[in-house]
Amino acid sequence: LAEISRPGAEALDAADPLAGFRARFDIADEQLVYLDGNSLGMLPRSTLARLGEAVREEWGGRLIRGWSEGWMELPLLVGDELGAAALGAATGQVAVGDSTSVCFYKLCAAALDEVAGEPGGFERDEIVSDVENFPTDRYVLEGLAAARGMKLRLAPSVADAMALAGPRTALASFSHVSYRTAEVVELPVVAAELRAAGARCVWDLSHSVGSVELALDEWEAELAVGCSYKYLNGGPGAPAWMYVARELQGSLRQPIWGWLGRRDPFLMAPGYEAADGMRRFLSGTPPVLALHAVRAGVALVADAGIAGIAQKGRALTSFCVEAADRLLGPLGGSVASPREDSRRGAHVALAHPRARTLVDRLATRGVIVDFREPDLLRFGLSPLTTRFVDVWDGVAALRDCLLG
Amino acid sequence: LAEISRPGAEALDAADPLAGFRARFDIADEQLVYLDGNSLGMLPRSTLARLGEAVREEWGGRLIRGWSEGWMELPLLVGDELGAAALGAATGQVAVGDSTSVCFYKLCAAALDEVAGEPGGFERDEIVSDVENFPTDRYVLEGLAAARGMKLRLAPSVADAMALAGPRTALASFSHVSYRTAEVVELPVVAAELRAAGARCVWDLSHSVGSVELALDEWEAELAVGCSYKYLNGGPGAPAWMYVARELQGSLRQPIWGWLGRRDPFLMAPGYEAADGMRRFLSGTPPVLALHAVRAGVALVADAGIAGIAQKGRALTSFCVEAADRLLGPLGGSVASPREDSRRGAHVALAHPRARTLVDRLATRGVIVDFREPDLLRFGLSPLTTRFVDVWDGVAALRDCLLG
Repeated sequence: LAEISRPGAEALDAADPLAGFRARFDIADEQLVYLDGNSLGMLPRSTLARLGEAVREEWGGRLIRGWSEGWMELPLLVGDELGAAALGAATGQVAVGDSTSVCFYKLCAAALDEVAGEPGGFERDEIVSDVENFPTDRYVLEGLAAARGMKLRLAPSVADAMALAGPRTALASFSHVSYRTAEVVELPVVAAELRAAGARCVWDLSHSVGSVELALDEWEAELAVGCSYKYLNGGPGAPAWMYVARELQGSLRQPIWGWLGRRDPFLMAPGYEAADGMRRFLSGTPPVLALHAVRAGVALVADAGIAGIAQKGRALTSFCVEAADRLLGPLGGSVASPREDSRRGAHVALAHPRARTLVDRLATRGVIVDFREPDLLRFGLSPLTTRFVDVWDGVAALRDCLLG
Repeated sequence: LAEISRPGAEALDAADPLAGFRARFDIADEQLVYLDGNSLGMLPRSTLARLGEAVREEWGGRLIRGWSEGWMELPLLVGDELGAAALGAATGQVAVGDSTSVCFYKLCAAALDEVAGEPGGFERDEIVSDVENFPTDRYVLEGLAAARGMKLRLAPSVADAMALAGPRTALASFSHVSYRTAEVVELPVVAAELRAAGARCVWDLSHSVGSVELALDEWEAELAVGCSYKYLNGGPGAPAWMYVARELQGSLRQPIWGWLGRRDPFLMAPGYEAADGMRRFLSGTPPVLALHAVRAGVALVADAGIAGIAQKGRALTSFCVEAADRLLGPLGGSVASPREDSRRGAHVALAHPRARTLVDRLATRGVIVDFREPDLLRFGLSPLTTRFVDVWDGVAALRDCLLG
């Protein structure tokens, strides 16, 4: 067990098999204690190089010819690479493109249409989720429910939401890792219960992907989305991804029938015919440059290995929890994340009544963390870039703020 | 009147007030005759520089702080700049983000919901468009009609479609400049007729924006979308834009209730409340890097001035039409675009039964044009980068192919 001190943190860094990955990022300010990679991941050096090449050589150099030289394949190619590196998904089940909100809308609408089309489907007039689900998910579900005359039931917790799931449930949606507390939902268990209840589920894996191990195929997760600007380090507003299990693809149709989801789009033929496989979940022209950035981020995760990343995530958060207990406990700060490693993603929420002010004061000391209403400081510990000393320095700075 | 010859083309280039703009693009191959800027515009040097800075200094340097230092404002800021430079739109009516297909879906769904909510709105159960409308528009409309139990009526032409518009029409949609022939629809006339018929219209301005003069406010265009990777030179898969006239914004709600369309998104509060103004048409996290690229492209259009760009577009296409008559007419090639300058966007369609093969043969000679089913060669003449000698060389190469 490590000593909970700065020398203890230094010792953990010295022994960290992933320590070398930090040098593969372009870090403008080495003095900055950046504990917000769960909001926006840092800039990989490979991305900087790759984007420059893609802009100059592919866009500038190849111009329109780029579409027949690989650009059309990027959404599914990067999806496959992501599936292998971080999702536990076999090829042909992941596509990258559109924002998380749009991806989520498309899969939820597709699932609702599928359920509505089944015998007796009209009796399933409810959508269930929980108030801790990420806001964009709750809002998109609210919009879908309003448009279809359905009822959105938001329970206080995932467990409470599952108690509501039954013969009237068409769709459920949960975050696998809570954006507030980092609490992990037992995805395979919940997915099996929902399947048994005859409901579909769309998972939001934004706070999971690239930080914890996922086995979407094995877990029979069926439908999921996630962003790529957190632990995948894809850049601000990077395109999101969708996972659709192969056996569901044929029976699902997403609502935005853009040309790139059509079979043979360049025929520009009359009438929409959904393409086979994941391609039918695409809509518009792929964001080529942004896809290159996501690809570079995914390659880093593949290089490091998600098992090692997840292990370091547990070690970092564990150290953070213990340091918080030691340094902040006596000063009114408390750990709001689960204390068991296995039930926690790669961030730690610390509760304090003056959280909002403290986040601002930390920033003036060069420590970047997030505030979440009403009283949480969120310490995001990104395994490829965060050092144990960053965790120590962040928690110590918070202690100093509380003492000062 | 210019002499229709290569020396004539050289003389036109020498007299061209916009000739200097070509040097503001990063042109990898000066020998390439690139007549496809209406599919993918070339790479501005300013974009290359700006993207590099944005990646390194904003993402790498500012990290999460970027969101409070300007990133949140980019979708509407770039929209305002685009509105002023190219749309004839006052501020607060344009937002940039999402693909053209997604933007089109959002505005069409919003318009359909608005009409359905009016007294007697249920009697308006038809959507009209024309078979020449860009495929993604036709497909998206087909999907919306299917989801709502409405009828999509696709007429052979805009005029025929307008003959169908009446008390059953909820929504119409047309391209202002045809992607095939470059024929220009009289937008203000059609818009007024549809208003009189009580129907909404969503315009697709993808082939107009940055190439012809638009006066959306003055024309009372109401609702429009367009891409930014053609004449705006925003890059492959660059985000598209939406225009919603100010007086309609309050009564329209788009269907994808993502968090960034909500009032005060970072409150992460219960329940969706649409933001005021254009912000309510946003859904997910803005694609920051891509928005910087669009902004750089828009700045070039603003510098050159859309009036001058449109004037050069007419001169280029006029020269192309005359050269085609002279060189190709005797060989079975014919001009499929309107012959009057004012009725034509910035590309010229040439019809030939062997168009597909000819496009490939031109490519081997270093002349890049587009093929469009079944028999069109599309010569895209992008006023900021295309020279009159490019037009001459392209038409002459086609003549040589036909002779060879």
